[in-house]
Amino acid sequence: MRMTEIIAKKRDGNALTEEEITFFISGCVSGGIPDYQTSALLMAIYFNGMNEQETAVLTQRMASSGSRMDLSAIDGVKVDKHSTGGVGDKTSLICGPIAAACGVKVAKMSGKGLGHTGGTIDKLLSIPHMRTELAPEEFFKAVQKNNISMISQSGNLAPADKKLYALRDVTATVESLPLIASSIMSKKLAAGSDCIVLDVKTGSGAFMKTLDDSLALAEAMVKIGEASGKKTVALITDMNVPLGHAVGNSLEVMEAADILKGKGPADLKEVSLSLAAEMIYLAGGGSLKECRQKAEEAISSGAALEKFRQMILSQGGDASVLEDYGKFKQPKYIRTIPAPTNGYLTKVETERLGHLSVILGAGRTMKDDPIDYSAGILLKAGFGDYVQKGVPLAVLYSDKESELDEAEALFPSTVLLGNQKPSPPKLVLARVEKDRISRF
Amino acid sequence: MRMTEIIAKKRDGNALTEEEITFFISGCVSGGIPDYQTSALLMAIYFNGMNEQETAVLTQRMASSGSRMDLSAIDGVKVDKHSTGGVGDKTSLICGPIAAACGVKVAKMSGKGLGHTGGTIDKLLSIPHMRTELAPEEFFKAVQKNNISMISQSGNLAPADKKLYALRDVTATVESLPLIASSIMSKKLAAGSDCIVLDVKTGSGAFMKTLDDSLALAEAMVKIGEASGKKTVALITDMNVPLGHAVGNSLEVMEAADILKGKGPADLKEVSLSLAAEMIYLAGGGSLKECRQKAEEAISSGAALEKFRQMILSQGGDASVLEDYGKFKQPKYIRTIPAPTNGYLTKVETERLGHLSVILGAGRTMKDDPIDYSAGILLKAGFGDYVQKGVPLAVLYSDKESELDEAEALFPSTVLLGNQKPSPPKLVLARVEKDRISRF
Repeated sequence: MRMTEIIAKKRDGNALTEEEITFFISGCVSGGIPDYQTSALLMAIYFNGMNEQETAVLTQRMASSGSRMDLSAIDGVKVDKHSTGGVGDKTSLICGPIAAACGVKVAKMSGKGLGHTGGTIDKLLSIPHMRTELAPEEFFKAVQKNNISMISQSGNLAPADKKLYALRDVTATVESLPLIASSIMSKKLAAGSDCIVLDVKTGSGAFMKTLDDSLALAEAMVKIGEASGKKTVALITDMNVPLGHAVGNSLEVMEAADILKGKGPADLKEVSLSLAAEMIYLAGGGSLKECRQKAEEAISSGAALEKFRQMILSQGGDASVLEDYGKFKQPKYIRTIPAPTNGYLTKVETERLGHLSVILGAGRTMKDDPIDYSAGILLKAGFGDYVQKGVPLAVLYSDKESELDEAEALFPSTVLLGNQKPSPPKLVLARVEKDRISRF
Repeated sequence: MRMTEIIAKKRDGNALTEEEITFFISGCVSGGIPDYQTSALLMAIYFNGMNEQETAVLTQRMASSGSRMDLSAIDGVKVDKHSTGGVGDKTSLICGPIAAACGVKVAKMSGKGLGHTGGTIDKLLSIPHMRTELAPEEFFKAVQKNNISMISQSGNLAPADKKLYALRDVTATVESLPLIASSIMSKKLAAGSDCIVLDVKTGSGAFMKTLDDSLALAEAMVKIGEASGKKTVALITDMNVPLGHAVGNSLEVMEAADILKGKGPADLKEVSLSLAAEMIYLAGGGSLKECRQKAEEAISSGAALEKFRQMILSQGGDASVLEDYGKFKQPKYIRTIPAPTNGYLTKVETERLGHLSVILGAGRTMKDDPIDYSAGILLKAGFGDYVQKGVPLAVLYSDKESELDEAEALFPSTVLLGNQKPSPPKLVLARVEKDRISRF
């Protein structure tokens, strides 16, 4: 088999065989296929796409390119959850504990954040003494005991994805549906759960800006999951405005705890309950309606909060932060931004707000940048809320005064106060299950 | 300037600026741009093409990427000639001396052959003691004195082309019109002549199989030449059948000498005279009709043969071979193939015949393969000739008996004898000059 012929085949719009894809992925990881051939193939895929069968095989080979997590030591149905990334998206910290409280086994591996969207691991590490680097046995034991554990992705998880992603990033081949779908799903397959709930964000603050693009990605990923023997459901959820009011690591953990205590912003609660219900549903917890009910009860009974506490404790964290938010690391500087005028909060430039949180120290622009866990933004009004001139509109947190100055200067460009109350956004826009798409 | 953005721009179908192309070519040659980015851009160009302006700039930057030949030491108008490659194509050895006899300065650099088409340098090196590696001063002096010299391409001629071609060859991006055109023309620009005559072969034995493709390539190359200040003309000539009867290095030199003596196959004479007339025309020799007349007279007067002789002598070759073909190296084995039946020669599988000559030792499959200068094929009948069963149809020459056996076994698949005399092929199908295309 010759790589040049494989490239020519895809260049001419033909489908690659299983053998050809296997040859490509194994050569890509071993180094037998030089990067210049890989990038030529990636560009040909960018132009000519891949069919369902090709995409599924590509994903499976990427998933098998390194060590796969074997979760068979854990009893019960293991359900994974993944978000394509949003601003203020702390739903994993909420739906994970809810699902765990309902008997679902949540053995989750997460990545760090990059760019304007945060990562679950960074949020967890804002809890004092929390550990996310657990050996497999400790991880399995924790899930077996508490139904839930969330750890950092192993270094050797889907190395083909690491390699391909690094090349795509510098060869303008990131925005390809089969390549995006296979990148996400290869890590989910390698992570070993039985079922996968996908939260595909859509809107100005998401990677996918339109509903059509988000639906196409959701469909592609659900097809990959099902073709690989994993029950998979995707929800398309809104990311035109940030989810909840908090953006920044410890701020988001506090907001997640609020939701688990039956408080907090309604939009965040709604999306988290929807995702939790899907997790319980895939684990066999009954009809979707019944599962939703169970999820709500897990909050009202306090069982979900208790699961969050257990998870923190089992990973060495200081769970008392859940009762006393003052125990989180505190920022050196806090600055309140008053509303410049009367009006309804009618627009949030969500992606820009995400970048603002990075400026404040809450995120990274480069892979190994350090994080300031206490940095971030707390909006004091939600989308559609009426505010009066001079009342606090947002609070900025940072350890660095100059960055705070910069963020303060940029903040006015991220929100718009208008005269008319905007209609509330639809939070869950669509649901994709095997062979069924429902739009809401 | 970032290469990733340049790739994205071309990927999205936009034209690159002069600065972007300059950045690309200089980074490509210096190594500052890694091959994986270059190959991604090449694939994007494969899909989205390049406009005239982009192609011209790309070619000029490739031409300037190494050392450019400065022919200003030679008086008069320097005219280069290039063929896209054919089987039995020895026209340079004919039209070069003709043009030189008519006062044109022919300072030609040529490459070696690869695959089923031969190279001028290999043909010249079949002349005993002939040298084609001349220092620039010796080259200039030879052209100044005799009007003609033909030497091997310098190692540092258009290194960007070498680099890009090597990458294209292994990334399935060879068949791209702007990349083919810029590859050929960059070497012509770097070679330093004032005018360029292009022989774009078309048909089953050529790289371009259809007239439309050949015309498109010819137009692209003429536009590049004119945009770069070089008067450029292209002829589209037939390569459905081999040109002349001889395929193989010394066999082709003998056939070229025959033409210069006023003998030899009519098709070869016609194409060579047409090309020579264009060379004289571009050098300012009068109307195309007058130039054609001059070319014919250069043959009938013996002046062109004399130029060929002078060129051979000035490059150390044994010019007595022109009178005594027995002074060429002789092959160890000669095998005559009789006609298997009565009939007209109605079809030649030209590309296959070219490969047959490679099997016999006349060409290369790999860049550094040795050549047997005496090996080859001499057809004893031309296209459309009637042959009787049992008379010699072709003679095969080789130093290796087993290769001769192989070629003999394959030969019947390369020619077809039919009952009806075929109509003669149109030898020159079209002519492309600045802003004017004539089809014949």
